[in-house]
Amino acid sequence: MSQFNKKLEQASKTNNSLLCIGLDADLAKIPQHLLNDSDPLYAFNQQIIEATKDLVCAYKPNMAFYEMHGIYGLESLIKTIELISSYNIPVILDGKRGDIGNTSAAYAKSAFEVFKADAITVNPYMGEDSVMPFLEYKDRGVFVLCLTSNSGAQDFELPIYKKVALKVKEWNKHNNAGLVVGATKPEQLKEIRALVPDLPLLIPGIGAQGGEIKATVQAGVDNKGGKAIINSSRSIIYASGKEDFARAAQKAAKELRDQINSHRFGK
Amino acid sequence: MSQFNKKLEQASKTNNSLLCIGLDADLAKIPQHLLNDSDPLYAFNQQIIEATKDLVCAYKPNMAFYEMHGIYGLESLIKTIELISSYNIPVILDGKRGDIGNTSAAYAKSAFEVFKADAITVNPYMGEDSVMPFLEYKDRGVFVLCLTSNSGAQDFELPIYKKVALKVKEWNKHNNAGLVVGATKPEQLKEIRALVPDLPLLIPGIGAQGGEIKATVQAGVDNKGGKAIINSSRSIIYASGKEDFARAAQKAAKELRDQINSHRFGK
Repeated sequence: MSQFNKKLEQASKTNNSLLCIGLDADLAKIPQHLLNDSDPLYAFNQQIIEATKDLVCAYKPNMAFYEMHGIYGLESLIKTIELISSYNIPVILDGKRGDIGNTSAAYAKSAFEVFKADAITVNPYMGEDSVMPFLEYKDRGVFVLCLTSNSGAQDFELPIYKKVALKVKEWNKHNNAGLVVGATKPEQLKEIRALVPDLPLLIPGIGAQGGEIKATVQAGVDNKGGKAIINSSRSIIYASGKEDFARAAQKAAKELRDQINSHRFGK
Repeated sequence: MSQFNKKLEQASKTNNSLLCIGLDADLAKIPQHLLNDSDPLYAFNQQIIEATKDLVCAYKPNMAFYEMHGIYGLESLIKTIELISSYNIPVILDGKRGDIGNTSAAYAKSAFEVFKADAITVNPYMGEDSVMPFLEYKDRGVFVLCLTSNSGAQDFELPIYKKVALKVKEWNKHNNAGLVVGATKPEQLKEIRALVPDLPLLIPGIGAQGGEIKATVQAGVDNKGGKAIINSSRSIIYASGKEDFARAAQKAAKELRDQINSHRFGK
């Protein structure tokens, strides 16, 4: 088992949770009193993390929401990852990166050495040499997009997602690969789980994107009720847009964690 | 014709060139005397740009090589784009970005409003809603990965690249879309050109990656000998690893531009 998988399993066990919170902070959506802070993105993330760190198995900041604010946003991202790491909770950097081999190596260096993430999401479109440089970081996790939760998934992913799942299984020499499979497609999720019984699955699309919880959990977990990382972003971090946002996020996270757990062992 | 296409055509006409130089500066590969500069990445790019700005139709910095150096690298990227823009040459930011709709909108904002690129490369794997937020910037260009120059292209791209080409053609309401097609596959390049006779094609893979020039040019240009953006990175920017690197890059760029032109009109 890779070091990333161990860290994930430990956090999941300690917090009795398969819940991952997506840290997609948007200055237009966070409580407006935070805009007076010298670093509003970090202030928002910090309060969300402090309120939910006993309820999650991982956090997943999406790079787009930080890049959107240029240098300032990327500085906030680095501080956010440092804070999460201080609590021994794994950080899955959602970057959906991928390029020809030597360029993917530069992205891997960025994610793992500069931003110091525990894991990254990778886009498989460009094939093997675009994915391998990430997998070569044996102590980190690599979640390859397989079948995503958005409507566009039908355009190109649907015809080839099983092939992607099988290829990733083949490339997984260091036992550090996983797949991204949307919660909006429980039937295919079940199929994919059968193809890769041992891989961790990162499952976004619960909540704002409409994925149904029971079907997702039952289709996504492995035969021990684990190895599913069920992500929710907006329905937790924006549970309240007022000063009580952190407490509201805590409440939403606890409810979702407990709801997921109620379906984990086939109940 | 979109504003991006006009800017591209103007630069191509002024410099009589289809050549694009990939600015993939790597601190381990640039001439070592530059490391004494306060901003070696920018110092390198600046000298390459000053030496070649009359020879190209565009520059293409790849974000990975800047992200790899964290905040510092991204500051160098911003300065590099400002310099290129001052010469009215279009900047194609090679990011291969793509995510669900609202997240792709954040990436589009990053590329076009923060980094101020004229165009971006986009990964189509996640489908329509992942590509549209970029295309909605009507005055910018969007090059969607179709069939790339790397060995991994055979894994997932080969079965679906024609479908990608036709979908992008369909999505191109604002006449600002293009495709990325590798120079290493001239037969498929010819097929794709026939499917999208009017789209600009960004063609990497000449030089270090082994694409053959004559076949690439003849297959890639439109029926007026244009709308092909032929990219070379390493074989130009690292033409010399010594103090004469800018002059060597100029020489290599001029030779490649002229060689491309010699095949442009079916000669």
